Amino acid sequence: MRALKQSNAILDTEPSQETEGQAHSNLVIRAAIAGATGYAGRELIALLARHPAARIARLMSSGRTEKQPFPIEQSHAKLRSTAVPSLDASEPLLCHPLRVEDLSKAEVDLVFLCTPHEVSHELAPALLARGLRVVDLSGAFRLRDSDAYARWYGFEHQTSAALDEAVYGISELNASAIQAARLVSNPGCYATSVILALAPLLQAGWVDKAAGIISDSKSGASGAGRVPSEKLHFAEVNENCRAYSIFTHRHVPEMLQALNLDETNFTFTPHLLPIIRGILSTNYLRLALSAPVSGVGDVVTLFQEFYAAAPLVRVYGDGVWPEISAVAHTNYTDIGFALDPTTRKLVIVSALDNLGKGAAGQAIQNMNLMFGLGQETGLL
Amino acid sequence: MRALKQSNAILDTEPSQETEGQAHSNLVIRAAIAGATGYAGRELIALLARHPAARIARLMSSGRTEKQPFPIEQSHAKLRSTAVPSLDASEPLLCHPLRVEDLSKAEVDLVFLCTPHEVSHELAPALLARGLRVVDLSGAFRLRDSDAYARWYGFEHQTSAALDEAVYGISELNASAIQAARLVSNPGCYATSVILALAPLLQAGWVDKAAGIISDSKSGASGAGRVPSEKLHFAEVNENCRAYSIFTHRHVPEMLQALNLDETNFTFTPHLLPIIRGILSTNYLRLALSAPVSGVGDVVTLFQEFYAAAPLVRVYGDGVWPEISAVAHTNYTDIGFALDPTTRKLVIVSALDNLGKGAAGQAIQNMNLMFGLGQETGLL
Amino acid sequence: MRALKQSNAILDTEPSQETEGQAHSNLVIRAAIAGATGYAGRELIALLARHPAARIARLMSSGRTEKQPFPIEQSHAKLRSTAVPSLDASEPLLCHPLRVEDLSKAEVDLVFLCTPHEVSHELAPALLARGLRVVDLSGAFRLRDSDAYARWYGFEHQTSAALDEAVYGISELNASAIQAARLVSNPGCYATSVILALAPLLQAGWVDKAAGIISDSKSGASGAGRVPSEKLHFAEVNENCRAYSIFTHRHVPEMLQALNLDETNFTFTPHLLPIIRGILSTNYLRLALSAPVSGVGDVVTLFQEFYAAAPLVRVYGDGVWPEISAVAHTNYTDIGFALDPTTRKLVIVSALDNLGKGAAGQAIQNMNLMFGLGQETGLL
Amino acid sequence: MRALKQSNAILDTEPSQETEGQAHSNLVIRAAIAGATGYAGRELIALLARHPAARIARLMSSGRTEKQPFPIEQSHAKLRSTAVPSLDASEPLLCHPLRVEDLSKAEVDLVFLCTPHEVSHELAPALLARGLRVVDLSGAFRLRDSDAYARWYGFEHQTSAALDEAVYGISELNASAIQAARLVSNPGCYATSVILALAPLLQAGWVDKAAGIISDSKSGASGAGRVPSEKLHFAEVNENCRAYSIFTHRHVPEMLQALNLDETNFTFTPHLLPIIRGILSTNYLRLALSAPVSGVGDVVTLFQEFYAAAPLVRVYGDGVWPEISAVAHTNYTDIGFALDPTTRKLVIVSALDNLGKGAAGQAIQNMNLMFGLGQETGLL
Repeated sequence: MRALKQSNAILDTEPSQETEGQAHSNLVIRAAIAGATGYAGRELIALLARHPAARIARLMSSGRTEKQPFPIEQSHAKLRSTAVPSLDASEPLLCHPLRVEDLSKAEVDLVFLCTPHEVSHELAPALLARGLRVVDLSGAFRLRDSDAYARWYGFEHQTSAALDEAVYGISELNASAIQAARLVSNPGCYATSVILALAPLLQAGWVDKAAGIISDSKSGASGAGRVPSEKLHFAEVNENCRAYSIFTHRHVPEMLQALNLDETNFTFTPHLLPIIRGILSTNYLRLALSAPVSGVGDVVTLFQEFYAAAPLVRVYGDGVWPEISAVAHTNYTDIGFALDPTTRKLVIVSALDNLGKGAAGQAIQNMNLMFGLGQETGLL
Repeated sequence: MRALKQSNAILDTEPSQETEGQAHSNLVIRAAIAGATGYAGRELIALLARHPAARIARLMSSGRTEKQPFPIEQSHAKLRSTAVPSLDASEPLLCHPLRVEDLSKAEVDLVFLCTPHEVSHELAPALLARGLRVVDLSGAFRLRDSDAYARWYGFEHQTSAALDEAVYGISELNASAIQAARLVSNPGCYATSVILALAPLLQAGWVDKAAGIISDSKSGASGAGRVPSEKLHFAEVNENCRAYSIFTHRHVPEMLQALNLDETNFTFTPHLLPIIRGILSTNYLRLALSAPVSGVGDVVTLFQEFYAAAPLVRVYGDGVWPEISAVAHTNYTDIGFALDPTTRKLVIVSALDNLGKGAAGQAIQNMNLMFGLGQETGLL
Repeated sequence: MRALKQSNAILDTEPSQETEGQAHSNLVIRAAIAGATGYAGRELIALLARHPAARIARLMSSGRTEKQPFPIEQSHAKLRSTAVPSLDASEPLLCHPLRVEDLSKAEVDLVFLCTPHEVSHELAPALLARGLRVVDLSGAFRLRDSDAYARWYGFEHQTSAALDEAVYGISELNASAIQAARLVSNPGCYATSVILALAPLLQAGWVDKAAGIISDSKSGASGAGRVPSEKLHFAEVNENCRAYSIFTHRHVPEMLQALNLDETNFTFTPHLLPIIRGILSTNYLRLALSAPVSGVGDVVTLFQEFYAAAPLVRVYGDGVWPEISAVAHTNYTDIGFALDPTTRKLVIVSALDNLGKGAAGQAIQNMNLMFGLGQETGLL
Repeated sequence: MRALKQSNAILDTEPSQETEGQAHSNLVIRAAIAGATGYAGRELIALLARHPAARIARLMSSGRTEKQPFPIEQSHAKLRSTAVPSLDASEPLLCHPLRVEDLSKAEVDLVFLCTPHEVSHELAPALLARGLRVVDLSGAFRLRDSDAYARWYGFEHQTSAALDEAVYGISELNASAIQAARLVSNPGCYATSVILALAPLLQAGWVDKAAGIISDSKSGASGAGRVPSEKLHFAEVNENCRAYSIFTHRHVPEMLQALNLDETNFTFTPHLLPIIRGILSTNYLRLALSAPVSGVGDVVTLFQEFYAAAPLVRVYGDGVWPEISAVAHTNYTDIGFALDPTTRKLVIVSALDNLGKGAAGQAIQNMNLMFGLGQETGLL
């Protein structure tokens, strides 16, 4: 029932793609997930279960000791009874051992990789070779410069052909390349929150780059994944907040790359918040003297126009700033502003759900683009 | 009261989409919400916005000083950009001053009352008189005995005609009465978690009532509503847990009434948890010697059969117990069991989201029943 | 300075022990901690650092990979700059590898074992053999019946001589035995909260045992220790609450033993709260018909008299119930009551800090008793 | 302003106990608290209760409706049974109506004002006139420029004589003036965390001020006080983080004043964290080319020397950064560093407990200085 309604809804909300409703009236994307037992995997399952034009073709995991398929609800209690319309409803949704040879073009259109970057680095080329399309949620294919992996990720990148064709999947900025891509590298959660907040101004040339840009980001604990560690123990995270990886976080190079900045003029500091999900980024910059800005309204207008066709970006124009609770459990990025006209100092606050727009939501958004759907399909 | 096993409404929602789409293809329930700025109001708005056969006809509030309509996102940031297909998408969703005369049968089919019980006590009869159907989320019409309000709610009930026709809206147990009702009194959040956990055993006669039943419930802070108070200040709730209203909580009499118990054999204690949403109830009882139970499996089977046609109840049978995180942001009630066969002591753990199945979710479920839809429509 | 003041304070607050101030005017208890890197170890360090008549003689840990001593602040950031008057203040407080042979009577008076029960089971006899006194915070010596360890702890108890002489260290109930003990077995955190709440009534014979007693306890995550696990991951604990180990928790047998109850008439269910520290126990019972109780005041009086000489128990008499925030970061147990005189149902709410009175605080309290100090010395 | 390096007061507190005891053996500071029912008041009570050379002379509050004295534990459950050695231990600690005429030099030496700035603005001159010394925790006397109050605080400052003599109580930087002061204006919590993090570098002239300094601060909810509001409702704060008062926070002018900066080169943004207590400030600046810095060690050394005589500042030198959990429930400020030598970008992370060093702890520290005690007396 929802499917039926939402497919009509797509017609309503996708302004320029008249034929899209028809385009997928019979389209069902068969999606597999590798790494289904993690948090991003769980979100993907939930999003796919209610997506009007996709279905779960296979769930896989290598992170569990089981060698046999097991009901995914053993890993994600919330998914108990998840309706997967394409499957026999009387059967629980199973998660299988991760084996590339179990994935074939005959049964799967797209594979989401929610695997560590070392694993994605191996899997993606193998899957491409089998004719499958891939959205990789790890960092394995985010940096165009293969030499940069040694510094930032601590390993030597070996799969340069795949890296060469990989498209950086920041949906709002790279839509046409994503539509044509076989391998989309889904951006980091922090990177998404920073890039979407800064790109419009940088592209407009309104920023005094020499004055430096600082992004101070705060993230919930699910962003660090589900693997247990003392650092993620409840008693270490709750009633606490701390900075970490100052100057060295892995999302820095993709921000620099996407925004055409460098370490001289850009600084990023991540912080761990005692919340489960959500990122708030407070971005500081100084407007260029040449920027045609007399008040914050000019900045708002620039962003509204820039994101006019971006249904998953909400631009705040009313003296209110984004907060994490407004985006948690959604696939939106919210962006708001404070300007001191005298000093031309601008603070841009952006917020998203690190598991939504920061991971699974954007992965689905990229899937939608790759298969000709409206980008927000199944995400509102 | 008997579990809904054969309901046509449930049949309606089975996923044979072609006929279903036709079944309500022309049905659109026009729903108004009084008390839209509270937490239950917010959840109702979100649920109605994605409901396939209902639309928001009017939002109203008396709790704000505004005398003019204001965008609901000023009250609920998360609802910014909420798509309400029935309205002009370019307009924000407005919340209006609460006036009964603004609600007429020509434009509204059903009114959800998310108002204090004193207000609901006045509004419900007036709305019935205007030919509207009502789901009241307050306690104003939950107790059949009008004299009980003085003790438990501290006011004298004046609207006995409305009280006489009100149907207690515990959806799984009262479906046929709800279907025919003009006024449904939506159960309390705690009450729902306790009643659904105990009803199957009590109806089967398997409980040693003389041994006493104890329900120890733990709830998130949103259950206390949005009105500020020192008791709900973040710094008072976080890193804390406390019992309150021991022997005197307002949900006790509706539990006694629904389960045919009394204060001699039933004890309920609510606790405040440092979480936003969710209730966990730990229910203790002793099985009657006559109960045909040799192991926990017999209890599981009883519940599975009792709730076989209840799509929003999930019965655990596998040595796992419900937890709040599995039901938060859902409309499910989860129920699980531990039995000590030697002593016949049974612990029943139930969990639900106090804003979902405990409030707005059950209200929508009751709306679905009242209008002939499958009860889970728009709730999965 | 604090030391000087507090030693005077001891004179003031210990009513009957006139000579005590003199007794320890020159007394400095040299205490070692095995298992210093865990949460109980951290609390012990903090308590000993400000104790007026004890000093830290040695910190040890086997849980870390280091084979060399390391500054304890690497494990516990909060202890950075902890003043340990007995040590050279310019040196950081070091934690050493755990070796029994490094502990001798010449340098150490007492060893606190914050080690897993299997380790304590080995260490305690070896330390006794070296002439040292021991307070063990694990469960290794809590149960008098050595056969019970197989069922509840999953191992066969081998050290029966040590077990025979071990004294169960519930300070308020066992003071004289503790004073004379070489080996004190510190009670479990849950057990302390339940035993102190029930003992006065049971000893007075006021409880209808046949009606059954239920203790529903809720604990913060630090009670599960510091070893990482998925169950303790922040994202699994926050915004959640769950029951666990129903009928099977290891603290049950020590409760039964201390209270002279059995599984027929006593039920205990632990729950995990999304807080760092604190336990709230809600205890349900029915007063015997023979109990001389006409109102809750009689119960309050019984408890006040029972705990008149117990400076770390606070009995509530004023219609207010304990809550975790009132005891967190303290060494108190708070106890309050609700009575339904008609049905004789009594709810007893108790609260303590699982790391304070539930672990390190009671361990220090027992140390104080063992060395002739006022039991609350250094704990207020 | 210069760090306190040679203070005799500090010498006093070194642990040669015999002479120390004599040094203040006859000094007992009689302290009153106005505004005892708030969070800062609660902390002051707890600190004074264990202070070796002060006692609580009177607690007062105007925020409660009671016209009669009431036990302070009614407002602060944690303070139940608080031992106040100077009072009859059998009496509960009472809180009285706030009346200036109840405070006289014969019975009180010092009054802590934990009152709103409008109230402090009235009270402080009246108390000075009665010969009492005052530590004001509000903002009423923090800004030397009386005209600035209209802009930042929204009221016209009328008490210029008191303002003229008020000393800004940032203990580590202003010790000698504080020692002589009759009226000390206790700094804001955010301001303390920022000023202590930046002062050493700015005083050394090592900062490229033209490049701008940014302080991004995150605070727990108790910093906003105890008065209920929707913004502080648990369900609004938990699982959330938001920026507020960008460019307009009241602590900005005292930071500018203390650090000799202006709005061109300094930006401050506060954020609300879902924790009870603690502030983390992430401070961004660029070192001047002239600064003699080849690595982060040079910065560490500067801070270590600057704070060599400051027992409540902990300078991190070991690649570890402060976090809130290391300072919560303490009176420390922790400071750590990350330097990118190539770009000369320096990130300084500071942390403190907003109720400790950020409010009551620093108030006691100032009291200690005013009465010739070691500044850390009663605070470790």
